[in-house]
Amino acid sequence: MSNSFGERYKITVFGQSHSEAIGVVIDGLPAGKKLDMDRIYKFMERRAPGRNDFSTQRKEEDMPKIISGVVNGVTCGAPLCAIIGNHDTRSADYDNIKLVPRPGHSDFTAFVKFDYENDIRGGGQFSGRLTAPICFAGAVFMQFLENEGIKIGAHIERICGIADERYNPVNVDFASVDEKDFPVIDDEQGKKMLEKIEEARQNQDSVGGVIECAITGMPIGFGEPMFDGVENTISRAAFAIPGVKGIEFGAGFECADLLGSQNNDPFRFSGNNSGNNIITETNNHGGALGGLTSGMPVVFRVAVKPTPSIGKEQRSVNMQTCEDENLVVKGRHDPCIVPRAVPCIEAIAAIAIMNL
Amino acid sequence: MSNSFGERYKITVFGQSHSEAIGVVIDGLPAGKKLDMDRIYKFMERRAPGRNDFSTQRKEEDMPKIISGVVNGVTCGAPLCAIIGNHDTRSADYDNIKLVPRPGHSDFTAFVKFDYENDIRGGGQFSGRLTAPICFAGAVFMQFLENEGIKIGAHIERICGIADERYNPVNVDFASVDEKDFPVIDDEQGKKMLEKIEEARQNQDSVGGVIECAITGMPIGFGEPMFDGVENTISRAAFAIPGVKGIEFGAGFECADLLGSQNNDPFRFSGNNSGNNIITETNNHGGALGGLTSGMPVVFRVAVKPTPSIGKEQRSVNMQTCEDENLVVKGRHDPCIVPRAVPCIEAIAAIAIMNL
Amino acid sequence: MSNSFGERYKITVFGQSHSEAIGVVIDGLPAGKKLDMDRIYKFMERRAPGRNDFSTQRKEEDMPKIISGVVNGVTCGAPLCAIIGNHDTRSADYDNIKLVPRPGHSDFTAFVKFDYENDIRGGGQFSGRLTAPICFAGAVFMQFLENEGIKIGAHIERICGIADERYNPVNVDFASVDEKDFPVIDDEQGKKMLEKIEEARQNQDSVGGVIECAITGMPIGFGEPMFDGVENTISRAAFAIPGVKGIEFGAGFECADLLGSQNNDPFRFSGNNSGNNIITETNNHGGALGGLTSGMPVVFRVAVKPTPSIGKEQRSVNMQTCEDENLVVKGRHDPCIVPRAVPCIEAIAAIAIMNL
Amino acid sequence: MSNSFGERYKITVFGQSHSEAIGVVIDGLPAGKKLDMDRIYKFMERRAPGRNDFSTQRKEEDMPKIISGVVNGVTCGAPLCAIIGNHDTRSADYDNIKLVPRPGHSDFTAFVKFDYENDIRGGGQFSGRLTAPICFAGAVFMQFLENEGIKIGAHIERICGIADERYNPVNVDFASVDEKDFPVIDDEQGKKMLEKIEEARQNQDSVGGVIECAITGMPIGFGEPMFDGVENTISRAAFAIPGVKGIEFGAGFECADLLGSQNNDPFRFSGNNSGNNIITETNNHGGALGGLTSGMPVVFRVAVKPTPSIGKEQRSVNMQTCEDENLVVKGRHDPCIVPRAVPCIEAIAAIAIMNL
Repeated sequence: MSNSFGERYKITVFGQSHSEAIGVVIDGLPAGKKLDMDRIYKFMERRAPGRNDFSTQRKEEDMPKIISGVVNGVTCGAPLCAIIGNHDTRSADYDNIKLVPRPGHSDFTAFVKFDYENDIRGGGQFSGRLTAPICFAGAVFMQFLENEGIKIGAHIERICGIADERYNPVNVDFASVDEKDFPVIDDEQGKKMLEKIEEARQNQDSVGGVIECAITGMPIGFGEPMFDGVENTISRAAFAIPGVKGIEFGAGFECADLLGSQNNDPFRFSGNNSGNNIITETNNHGGALGGLTSGMPVVFRVAVKPTPSIGKEQRSVNMQTCEDENLVVKGRHDPCIVPRAVPCIEAIAAIAIMNL
Repeated sequence: MSNSFGERYKITVFGQSHSEAIGVVIDGLPAGKKLDMDRIYKFMERRAPGRNDFSTQRKEEDMPKIISGVVNGVTCGAPLCAIIGNHDTRSADYDNIKLVPRPGHSDFTAFVKFDYENDIRGGGQFSGRLTAPICFAGAVFMQFLENEGIKIGAHIERICGIADERYNPVNVDFASVDEKDFPVIDDEQGKKMLEKIEEARQNQDSVGGVIECAITGMPIGFGEPMFDGVENTISRAAFAIPGVKGIEFGAGFECADLLGSQNNDPFRFSGNNSGNNIITETNNHGGALGGLTSGMPVVFRVAVKPTPSIGKEQRSVNMQTCEDENLVVKGRHDPCIVPRAVPCIEAIAAIAIMNL
Repeated sequence: MSNSFGERYKITVFGQSHSEAIGVVIDGLPAGKKLDMDRIYKFMERRAPGRNDFSTQRKEEDMPKIISGVVNGVTCGAPLCAIIGNHDTRSADYDNIKLVPRPGHSDFTAFVKFDYENDIRGGGQFSGRLTAPICFAGAVFMQFLENEGIKIGAHIERICGIADERYNPVNVDFASVDEKDFPVIDDEQGKKMLEKIEEARQNQDSVGGVIECAITGMPIGFGEPMFDGVENTISRAAFAIPGVKGIEFGAGFECADLLGSQNNDPFRFSGNNSGNNIITETNNHGGALGGLTSGMPVVFRVAVKPTPSIGKEQRSVNMQTCEDENLVVKGRHDPCIVPRAVPCIEAIAAIAIMNL
Repeated sequence: MSNSFGERYKITVFGQSHSEAIGVVIDGLPAGKKLDMDRIYKFMERRAPGRNDFSTQRKEEDMPKIISGVVNGVTCGAPLCAIIGNHDTRSADYDNIKLVPRPGHSDFTAFVKFDYENDIRGGGQFSGRLTAPICFAGAVFMQFLENEGIKIGAHIERICGIADERYNPVNVDFASVDEKDFPVIDDEQGKKMLEKIEEARQNQDSVGGVIECAITGMPIGFGEPMFDGVENTISRAAFAIPGVKGIEFGAGFECADLLGSQNNDPFRFSGNNSGNNIITETNNHGGALGGLTSGMPVVFRVAVKPTPSIGKEQRSVNMQTCEDENLVVKGRHDPCIVPRAVPCIEAIAAIAIMNL
């Protein structure tokens, strides 16, 4: 069950980093929707590895193959299953971590949980590679959401102390980021981030960051009270992306330092007679009040930890000899997964929103 | 469905602030457990209103009455239902907000969702009062968890810029907070927080804060990969508490500024032959790796926004006349809900942990 | 979880036969519906005990009290909770079965499951009394379904070898049964059934029967393929009623003896331009094709076993002495629960249909 | 969601009769179990088409390919995904039914539900072919159940009026059916059934039947009260098999004609000191009391309707011209699906039992 999400539009993800293939089943899609596969592929390329200096050098075709649910390019109401082959896998790289767990990784906890039978190669089912089918599902959902006027975008808000601008939370301008190879609003800051990443790479180290995501065009009143509100649903989904360690909506942790009179967003009429004519002047609530969408942009930020796989020597233990043992992680690894995680967070937003 | 949480140990919360009663059904409890009702009542008193100057003046008996699932004080395997009567309710206080939604509240979104038929009085089903049955369920679960050696505690980490110490994440000392009326580690800082709260109260304003919660004694490997891990489950539950706008685990948002070599927690042997003998030297991962418990304390923090109900005049709109209208919220309201939210967060942790 | 049913319109039942109260929480009801409480009470009276010679002599007020979810008689979008007090309970009657399980009852299996801690009195959580909150939920749902033109009715199809007529499956005539104290189409056969029941009562024995239920006005295409179709959903719900041991749709078990050319229902136009203009000439499919509603009446029958609690001496075992021991069940028991089960099956149909 | 079943051991089925492939994802399998693939293939061959005169002539490789969740033949804790290619598909055969729905089929209801966009070829997602992945999942689960001493078997109980013997419900003898090509206990009756099937085939007609299934070795007390008992779970799963129109447990519909004193199964000691030492003398309850397993064999029977696809001319309607139109179904079809449904019902039993 843990690999499934959603009740109305359920996705089920399967595969390991080094299994024959990985994939996703999407159940509940309405029939009759023509899918624009080019845009889906383009979206997935944004998270694909090997595109540039700051991403892992493992190159492969990450493009999914649809094996059910679509007839002549149109959804038919049956579950859509797409699989992605795993071709370029060097299992040998992972021999030494079988007994010496990598700090910051799931090796140790998975060993214990699965009684040492889990597929350690490439992180197994905990691999970041599993975000590829998540991105596929998100890209499919986005085409349904767009029909309803809902748009999703994200950018890098921070990397290792270097901050980008934030979206204007009242009036999100997706165009300021779109189409950029390195998704930031302020390209000057983007350059500094790239330098930080390059520095980490040369030091066999890694860096983390923060991603900001916005969803616009949401109707008012979506979400359910208490356990199935906007924040509950998005946060549960967001922590499925490896490395995410925090999430905040609207003013988030900053609201802890505000007065109620500062944090409350005054209502006013938009002067717009069509559609949503009551809006808020500010958006500290991040588009969700009482767990329900307010019609304002849903804005949230997630913290992504530095890639745990680093070339630097680290202290660990040998679970067989029961002695301390230093570890050097081999294999190819991103010094920073934040840029590739940007489309993953957009996909997560789409998956969560579809289920509100 | 939105008022239910959990698969194995499911809770279903019901009631509105001003309905005849509120309550909770707990399904899945093992039979044969003697419940210590005194401790449950004592736990619930920590969130009860009217205890002191910084909490709402609405006084009433918040003590639950068990109507099924327990025979002679012992669970019998049937669903446990407990209800709490609503006695002291002045509905008239809420007349003016029927048409003029309170900023920062669910009034507006609930109006639209429920087609103006929702129970506006006291926040209806969105009321903080619904955290009473959540606390009851949490207090019940804690007694089961304690049998397994699992302990849960929380304290105020920050209020309006005044910071408490944090727990030592490797070796949590619950005793430093236990039994205190105002749950902080550093009482000097606690005094300053109380001054801030009093200041807000006098200004008819309110303040927010951050709560830190720790769970110790977790076995290794609990949680499921991807969508049902430790972070997914706790975060989905935490946003059920009104006012929560963010959550972070371990180093959380700070890890965005760390290098991998700083953020990774080295493994080492504990020198403790019984039980968990592999531990980490630091606990930036907050007790969860790959969504699975590592055996280290699970540590998380939630941001709580300032109480939106404030006495100060605020700008809003009249949904009938379609004109701007200023609003003064009457009724009794906490200038700061953070202290009362501390046991709620502990309860949420218990509810989430039971379902891992 | 086992005491909950449904995703969109979830009901959660709680209580034991001799707990302080029993009840139900209904989550997901739309706001703004005025409930006709008189009709709900009238419906519940049909299953209430003590109405006549063939039902148990335990008399009490079975009328539910709504404690949340309704404001001024109108649903408000919050979960509706209703409770029914348990007043007339003679626990002493159940002393001898604590160690000697009643044949045909859940005593034995519940003892083992709940480690001898289950509430044995009156069947505990397995009691037929729990069908009262199920009937309440069904009666509420029926008022929503009627708005959509959906009607539900049931009658006794057979008792101990005496058969009533069946509904015309193509054109169900609910009026032929409505308002009757003893719900059969053919009153002559009804008289013979009552004689059989009286005979069983005098012999301290009991009889079983079959109930036929029909649902009309269903739109075409409701239900989901494979595991969430019409038959899956109704059958899962139907076995919640104690004593149900079988269910069949349309021709049911008889179709095992038919040829395809006999069993297939030919399509034809109804000549009715409004609404559903393609119908079938016969209705062996019972209103469900491929798990989806066909627009024809949904017709199903359930087998109800004879009441297991009988006055006659029966062979059993003493679980303490580990010796054979004969048992005479004391307490008040129906010689036939089929008549009171008729509204329960209607309620189950309503609960299942709401969730399609 | 409708294509998923189970909470602990969830299966998700995907594919259409004529999609590129069909398959299943199994989530929740414990790690470390070596799968015996030969036995899985052998089990699946029992439902494969083209084995003899009474099954469809569509021949193809129905053998599944595992693409995740298994490493070196051993489960690794990740979701197991298996796919089966669709090779031999003559889509042209289905042209005439696009507008003229086949009586007894899901064509009409699926057209309406999916707005004429569903994949009509071969029944699309409603095809009996989807039982292949269900059988795969069942075969996998059986290997886990066998470890616990649980066995499952089924046989043809009836075909078009010709009855086989039933299992001895107290002491099931699976060996009396095992390994037979045509799974009946009494081979003489089996011959007569085959004659009936052949007769139907020559008349371009079809026949239905009843399958009896037994599960032995169940521990006492499995299942949950009310909605998640043994009967609820098995029945919900059983109606996923196309053509199933009824299900009964133990004495089933016959108990409607019995007295309580006849239907109640007396308890007695087994004289067996190890394991389950309280048994019942008879098994009219079919191994389930109060929804919980009693330790006696779980015995149930399902009614399977005659294959709706028959060569004979049938009356239907043309949905485009809105006129009556007779239909001759082309394509290859079984005159009787009952023999091939026998392993499907065993698989369903395994899937249901795993989730108790």
